[in-house]
Amino acid sequence: MAKPLPDRIKQYISGAPVGRIATVRPGGEPHVIPVCPVFDGDATLYVDLAPGSVSGRNVLANPRVTVLIDDYFDDWSKLRKVVLRCRARPVEGPEQNAAWERIRAKFPQYTSVDWQPRLTVALHIEGWLQEGLDS
Amino acid sequence: MAKPLPDRIKQYISGAPVGRIATVRPGGEPHVIPVCPVFDGDATLYVDLAPGSVSGRNVLANPRVTVLIDDYFDDWSKLRKVVLRCRARPVEGPEQNAAWERIRAKFPQYTSVDWQPRLTVALHIEGWLQEGLDS
Repeated sequence: MAKPLPDRIKQYISGAPVGRIATVRPGGEPHVIPVCPVFDGDATLYVDLAPGSVSGRNVLANPRVTVLIDDYFDDWSKLRKVVLRCRARPVEGPEQNAAWERIRAKFPQYTSVDWQPRLTVALHIEGWLQEGLDS
Repeated sequence: MAKPLPDRIKQYISGAPVGRIATVRPGGEPHVIPVCPVFDGDATLYVDLAPGSVSGRNVLANPRVTVLIDDYFDDWSKLRKVVLRCRARPVEGPEQNAAWERIRAKFPQYTSVDWQPRLTVALHIEGWLQEGLDS
């Protein structure tokens, strides 16, 4: 990516329980849903999507995806966000297994909804911007 | 819109302090940022964007916009979201003033950042889906 992610941004991404993933429908309309992402600590997020969902179909048709990780506070001086411009690539085999090791470790509640590997997608971060995370 | 918003969804939208707005860049890449929306109680959201921002430029070039309003909980049985498929239209004059009356009433902290009317956009809701807000 153009400029590497600083450690503080990597830590913020690693710890985030939720992000919002924007994709584009084949007709050009945007879509956005919440996702529970895991991060490899370098430059790739992983998410697991329902293959038949709008987002799942979108990433298969168009790999350009943007992920927002942010926190809202009523005290607007505390607002912070990271916008990650990504390229999506479905993964299987060892890479999917490694992503799912991270998912199981980060989100123990996955058992509560009987979450199983579906369409697991690597999101390679190609660009980013942030606000509120300077220190 | 295809099916009217139930009252419980309208109340959820009205009360939400933050939403995430997905737009599309001229080249076809999605973008997503947090916004503080107001709702007219019927079928239109209003947001105020920086005219030179990516989102501001995107809505002027492509009126198709999707807004996500959701709440994340570590207890995944409580997750809830509304996805609103919208058409954007910049507003000025009385409609902009009315939107800003709602903004000032809902977000008194706007004074803390000296927030002034910029590119105020009506987002007409043309379709929606929800999860977790059935009762």
